[in-house]
Amino acid sequence: MNPHERFYEKVRTVADLSFAQQALEWDMQVMMPRKGTPQRAAQVAAVATLAHARMTDPELGDLIAALEADGSLGEAERADVREARRGYDRSVKLPERLVAERARAVALSHAAWEEARPKNDFAGFLPHLETVVRLTREVAEAVGTANRYDALLDEYEPGMTEAELREVFGDLKSRLLPLLDAIRGAPRRPDPSVLHRHFPKARQEAFSRRVAVDAGFDMTAGRLDVSAHPFTSGTLHDVRLTTRYLEDFLPAALFGTLHEAGHGMYEQGLDPARFRDPAGQACSLGIHESQSRFWENIVGRSRAFWSFYFKPLQETFPGTLDDVSLETFYGAVNHVAPSLIRVEADEATYNLHILLRFDIESDLLAGRVEPRGLPDLWRAKMCEYLGITPPDDRDGVLQDVHWSVGLIGYFPTYALGNLYAAQFRQALLAAVPDLEARLERGEMGAVKEWLNRNIHVHGRRWLAQELCQRVTGRPLGPEPLLGYLREKYAEIYGI
Amino acid sequence: MNPHERFYEKVRTVADLSFAQQALEWDMQVMMPRKGTPQRAAQVAAVATLAHARMTDPELGDLIAALEADGSLGEAERADVREARRGYDRSVKLPERLVAERARAVALSHAAWEEARPKNDFAGFLPHLETVVRLTREVAEAVGTANRYDALLDEYEPGMTEAELREVFGDLKSRLLPLLDAIRGAPRRPDPSVLHRHFPKARQEAFSRRVAVDAGFDMTAGRLDVSAHPFTSGTLHDVRLTTRYLEDFLPAALFGTLHEAGHGMYEQGLDPARFRDPAGQACSLGIHESQSRFWENIVGRSRAFWSFYFKPLQETFPGTLDDVSLETFYGAVNHVAPSLIRVEADEATYNLHILLRFDIESDLLAGRVEPRGLPDLWRAKMCEYLGITPPDDRDGVLQDVHWSVGLIGYFPTYALGNLYAAQFRQALLAAVPDLEARLERGEMGAVKEWLNRNIHVHGRRWLAQELCQRVTGRPLGPEPLLGYLREKYAEIYGI
Repeated sequence: MNPHERFYEKVRTVADLSFAQQALEWDMQVMMPRKGTPQRAAQVAAVATLAHARMTDPELGDLIAALEADGSLGEAERADVREARRGYDRSVKLPERLVAERARAVALSHAAWEEARPKNDFAGFLPHLETVVRLTREVAEAVGTANRYDALLDEYEPGMTEAELREVFGDLKSRLLPLLDAIRGAPRRPDPSVLHRHFPKARQEAFSRRVAVDAGFDMTAGRLDVSAHPFTSGTLHDVRLTTRYLEDFLPAALFGTLHEAGHGMYEQGLDPARFRDPAGQACSLGIHESQSRFWENIVGRSRAFWSFYFKPLQETFPGTLDDVSLETFYGAVNHVAPSLIRVEADEATYNLHILLRFDIESDLLAGRVEPRGLPDLWRAKMCEYLGITPPDDRDGVLQDVHWSVGLIGYFPTYALGNLYAAQFRQALLAAVPDLEARLERGEMGAVKEWLNRNIHVHGRRWLAQELCQRVTGRPLGPEPLLGYLREKYAEIYGI
Repeated sequence: MNPHERFYEKVRTVADLSFAQQALEWDMQVMMPRKGTPQRAAQVAAVATLAHARMTDPELGDLIAALEADGSLGEAERADVREARRGYDRSVKLPERLVAERARAVALSHAAWEEARPKNDFAGFLPHLETVVRLTREVAEAVGTANRYDALLDEYEPGMTEAELREVFGDLKSRLLPLLDAIRGAPRRPDPSVLHRHFPKARQEAFSRRVAVDAGFDMTAGRLDVSAHPFTSGTLHDVRLTTRYLEDFLPAALFGTLHEAGHGMYEQGLDPARFRDPAGQACSLGIHESQSRFWENIVGRSRAFWSFYFKPLQETFPGTLDDVSLETFYGAVNHVAPSLIRVEADEATYNLHILLRFDIESDLLAGRVEPRGLPDLWRAKMCEYLGITPPDDRDGVLQDVHWSVGLIGYFPTYALGNLYAAQFRQALLAAVPDLEARLERGEMGAVKEWLNRNIHVHGRRWLAQELCQRVTGRPLGPEPLLGYLREKYAEIYGI
């Protein structure tokens, strides 16, 4: 094999091992009997350790260097070499011992979180969280950027820094708060109570499944299951969505499934010839989240979407929504109010949930707070950003799975996703001027096709910021999101 | 780390990787969307290749040699070193290329078999089978025993040879055929038609699940799912059973689940401190099968078992079996007749299904027949052994999953399982003289406890033949099985 072939053989094996690890983790969260946790944790650690050994193989380093010096590479290959370099440089800094220890800790910690949350038992979860935070700080130190937060952020949103986020988020906050004030004082207020009627699980599942398939998620290359915290796993022809059904709150499963289907369609839309290559995989988590938020909110919470789907929804739950008008329902799914749970938050307040987590993570990594201080800090931040405080940790600091599995520096990508999604919306509207009319007829094909062609299939050919510039003609900014929100809420709230 | 610690670290990592591979394969057969096959095949191959590299690590060879020379080891450790030596010597003979290629071929071939069987499409499956057979012959050549069959057999039933099997099976055949002749000419014949009434899938599942749990299978450390060919996967605290439901044939799921639960209880009963160690794992496939056949037949097809469970069964299917007496039902589940499908065969003819597969495999490995000749050879052998020929390949040569996944040399362990099970039964009856009365009260705890204590917890501390000698006081022989069958059928058939 020449260096070129040898390079691709090596990076594709790393990808296969990482997909294998993902599949083992999916199983652990969705299928595995609870008692299996310790033995599965050892299995995941074994695979992760070997993947890390392959990623840090000095021969791979030599091959990357050789290809960097090779002037004959095409654009796609250059992108692969660039991304392999990023991964290699990061990995060689992490000792194998730390990778294995963290993988094992994270598996146990996730199981502990799953037990602790329903019992509102932060104390029971704390020792696991302390271990995960300690090991995550060690990871950040090992990567060795100017500050710890940047080291973690770079894994999820390459090129982004804590300082840049602070600026973007500050700008967003200062312009979002006046909009929220206006909504608070609005002359009209939609009534969300219809969403709290009784919606049997099996019927929710049938409707969610239908909408995901209509949107374009390929169930012959994927699954939809149940887990405590919804997530998407897998890639290309094996993409697994999870959701959760609350019989007294329709939006959780409905918009949750559409959200995960957005992630899933991104993975299904990658280039089949390139999905195991370094630059053939998804661009960044911010771009990934732009796809889920696009389907959940920009499509799923639009008047045009419900013009078509409200009738099928009424028919899915006979007798439950017969007295509800389309206008009432549309208002209900766009009701704005400070609330405790991020994943159920409306489009306007959602970003504040992210901003407070960013603040907390920033303090946690800098050592300004320790894990045992998180419940108090959480309550203080909720009060500061949203004006409410959770009655318990279950709906407070324990609500998200992320920290339990070591995902620190990850939350900001959710707000970035909202910003990207709104900016992509403008470009899509320019390309498909009759979009609204299509959605009113239940035709979502043009949306999926545009996202496929402009975003999915390119994978990580360009970094997120460059992809945004190419697709929308402009760098990322808060105005498209603010404009979209102002327009929508002006009409609903009469402001 | 000293050599002792280093040895255990290495062999346990190999075990973890092998468990991880098993979990990925379970998912592939039970959960994965069909389109995911090629990418999952690459993942399984990546993990298998790394496991093989670890198993053939020269440092492991040095550690085994060092511990073999260490006079201070205890009995359990000596058994671990013995089993590690067996695995190491076998693995170093197999080139990494062959292991990876075979793992990938097997994954694709399994998927092809799953498609081909319902379509009765042997021609569509043939290219995959040819590849698997070619690679399996290569494996046998690489191991390099006197003949190819022994090389494969040794993986499933350490110490056993083709020549010994030919003798044992010859003996069994010559004494089984007169019994079958007597049954054919018997004055009484049970009527199996009651088993072909309509049994809704969901109720079958509830009853099968209940019986598996009553027998002692721990559902908090396991699962029960559906797959095309029932199997058991996993170990200790994460054991997955699968079954299949035929609404017009009750025994498939009922006895199939009890069979797999027997395998599952063996895995759940291993020593938790030793399950990742070379001699802490199950003894042999013959012993494994003795556990499944014990529960399926010796318990599950006994009069005492049905004295208790027939009433709950009637209640599970209201109106379906009300006109059926216990005697009629007991006769039906013990009806003896030559039939096409191995997994549904009665206890008397079952072994003939194995014997004909053993003949075919023997010819296949020696090159006396090629894969394209299998459908004809199958029909000829069915006629020779059972006096019937299948109308198509679906219920003929395509019926079993084994060859599609490269399990050649594996079928004989099923007949060995029957022989071991009957011999264990004699020892259990000596230890628990009131067994029948207990089963009539629905008490199966003593059976599971005896199997746990005498067989499960010992793992591979001794090889199968020695375990049999220790548990039953005698070497393996055909008489206990023949005596058990003669006694049972004498009463049912009046012979």
